[in-house]
Amino acid sequence: MERIYLDHAGTTPMHPKVMEAMQPYFREKFGNPSSLHTPGQEAAQAVAEARASLAELLDVAYPDEIVFTSGGTESDNTAILGTLFALKKKGNHIITSAIEHHAVLHACQFLEKQGLAKVTYLPVDSTGLVDPEDVKKAIGEKTVLVTIMHANNEIGTIQPVAEIGAICRERKVACHTDAVQTVGHIPISVQKINIDMLSLSAHKFYGPRGVGALYVRKGVRISPLMHGGGQEKGKRSGTLNVAGIVGLGEAAQQAALEMDSEVRRQSEMRDSLIKGLTEAIPDSLMTGHPTQRLPNNASICVRYVEGESMLLNMDLQGIAASSGSACTSGSLEASHVLLAINLPHEIAHGSLRFTFGRDNKTAHVSRVLEVLPPVVERLRAMSPLNKQT
Amino acid sequence: MERIYLDHAGTTPMHPKVMEAMQPYFREKFGNPSSLHTPGQEAAQAVAEARASLAELLDVAYPDEIVFTSGGTESDNTAILGTLFALKKKGNHIITSAIEHHAVLHACQFLEKQGLAKVTYLPVDSTGLVDPEDVKKAIGEKTVLVTIMHANNEIGTIQPVAEIGAICRERKVACHTDAVQTVGHIPISVQKINIDMLSLSAHKFYGPRGVGALYVRKGVRISPLMHGGGQEKGKRSGTLNVAGIVGLGEAAQQAALEMDSEVRRQSEMRDSLIKGLTEAIPDSLMTGHPTQRLPNNASICVRYVEGESMLLNMDLQGIAASSGSACTSGSLEASHVLLAINLPHEIAHGSLRFTFGRDNKTAHVSRVLEVLPPVVERLRAMSPLNKQT
Repeated sequence: MERIYLDHAGTTPMHPKVMEAMQPYFREKFGNPSSLHTPGQEAAQAVAEARASLAELLDVAYPDEIVFTSGGTESDNTAILGTLFALKKKGNHIITSAIEHHAVLHACQFLEKQGLAKVTYLPVDSTGLVDPEDVKKAIGEKTVLVTIMHANNEIGTIQPVAEIGAICRERKVACHTDAVQTVGHIPISVQKINIDMLSLSAHKFYGPRGVGALYVRKGVRISPLMHGGGQEKGKRSGTLNVAGIVGLGEAAQQAALEMDSEVRRQSEMRDSLIKGLTEAIPDSLMTGHPTQRLPNNASICVRYVEGESMLLNMDLQGIAASSGSACTSGSLEASHVLLAINLPHEIAHGSLRFTFGRDNKTAHVSRVLEVLPPVVERLRAMSPLNKQT
Repeated sequence: MERIYLDHAGTTPMHPKVMEAMQPYFREKFGNPSSLHTPGQEAAQAVAEARASLAELLDVAYPDEIVFTSGGTESDNTAILGTLFALKKKGNHIITSAIEHHAVLHACQFLEKQGLAKVTYLPVDSTGLVDPEDVKKAIGEKTVLVTIMHANNEIGTIQPVAEIGAICRERKVACHTDAVQTVGHIPISVQKINIDMLSLSAHKFYGPRGVGALYVRKGVRISPLMHGGGQEKGKRSGTLNVAGIVGLGEAAQQAALEMDSEVRRQSEMRDSLIKGLTEAIPDSLMTGHPTQRLPNNASICVRYVEGESMLLNMDLQGIAASSGSACTSGSLEASHVLLAINLPHEIAHGSLRFTFGRDNKTAHVSRVLEVLPPVVERLRAMSPLNKQT
């Protein structure tokens, strides 16, 4: 049975070139970049090159504005907790949206519970868009941070971050974006989108697990989340994960090379899958924005069936997809994202997400179109939910 | 020129078996363990096996007491900040020592600056030992955490953590130990040393960079440092670094196999290097405890010369060692550890640390004994410090 992986928003396999680039740093060039001796300095050089590659991908003005972390969750937590701790004399108000990744939402909720912040959760429209006017209205005297994701991990909607960033800049409030789903997938210039901080994760674009970065524009003040040896100019302590960082740098280079053709290729697969499924399955609908969406995200909801049941049935036929995000699958709660775009519970429970990657081809779309509709029909025949109608 | 690496306390090359074990998880078995589909569940299984291997190495009662992190710094910060946030209603007093790693000291200082904790820094004797009686006396009504390192990263002194742990248990105060330098190097039973939390880092014992763990005994309450998807039973969010975790598990297995013979082999090299250097170099002395010390640590101070100058001269001859810890080399301040054991500044500045590993052999000791004494002689001949005497 051919296995078809359509869960690239969850994680991606490493790019062969990334593997290759990392290998020498496991055993031969293994120095600690903080060390003065030759092995240490070789490692420091490799880190500098990776930083430059990532800076280039994101149009970062100064490579030192990139702080390497252990991944997207750490980057988000650093941006949020770090801003609050650094600016507590200035204020304690955060503005975010109702559909952020849990790394943002739970960091905000932690600060609320500890009495360290007040948080405004902006609503979104039925396509998942935040209205920049809402951001403008929500900014007050005590606002120290606006954090709105670049693209949603479940429904793929791309937010107007450049507009939101411009508003924040005018009002002198720091603006952070969780770009874990967009970096390496669509073109990004941190300068053009007017943001002060941006989170990314290597394993979402064919880099290694356990490494990510936080872009922090020069002059933006944050307190570190992890205290210690003072690496990364004091913004993130901990021995640098050299092999991982080299892998992230290489993933950035490969993304730059492949992005244009992959955006075209994947958007076509996305559109034909969305169209095919919503036509073939009665009572199904696309979630997210029809055009302002990630090129690789095809998300739908199917009425009268559980997302999880569809997933497991597809898995038996070799197709790996997701229901909601990987982080919360296994949970019985309906996705906070789908509830925020005003889908009723019974529809939100039938959510499916297919996310394409560089190894997918159009035959995979046909295979899903062949497998899923009969699965849905069978499940509906057995479903008590169905009988309620 | 043969390169001799004697900085294993800074970092280690990966064990060949660790490399081998990790390889399949980069591209073939790359699933996200939080996903329900087959690739996800394969990854979850690999993580469970690694957790069991690490649990066995440390005599951990329940594998779930192990929380995977990005490394020692994150583990230390999680234990310290996490305890303070979780127990803030109970108290805000921390007891630690003056010679902890910066990951502990700077985390404590951060909490002090934010007004979130009061910290007692216990002194040590001239060999670097904390007196358990001092811990007992320092514990008060508001004490919520005692954090004393297992072995010091600069001078190698091993603390009486079992006694300290017993005191904490009697007084119902959580006890954490930073065991980054000891895990994989000397036998540890978390149960016998009476501790509630223990930090470790894979790359200090031939595992990969960017992965570590925090042991948290069942029933011990901590707040996470990173909030998000709720991985690791809610104690540490963020996509699991499967390849890294598999590498950590394999490193634990290899450590268990090699530990006995390596302890013997490395202690011999350590003792003969300490003896050889202190005999060959006038006005030099061993730092740390003569017997209660890490098997791989030979640390000395050489009067009238700068540690950094000795390092760079040895590096030119292919020998990689360290002055103080890797984290602070490059800094002009004298090591806080050497000042805490009451060495005057002018001696502390001439510190050198040689740390052995599994690839070292006795010929490397001879080579250092051949290279360093003439380097010191030459440097002293040029040194203004020398002329002051």
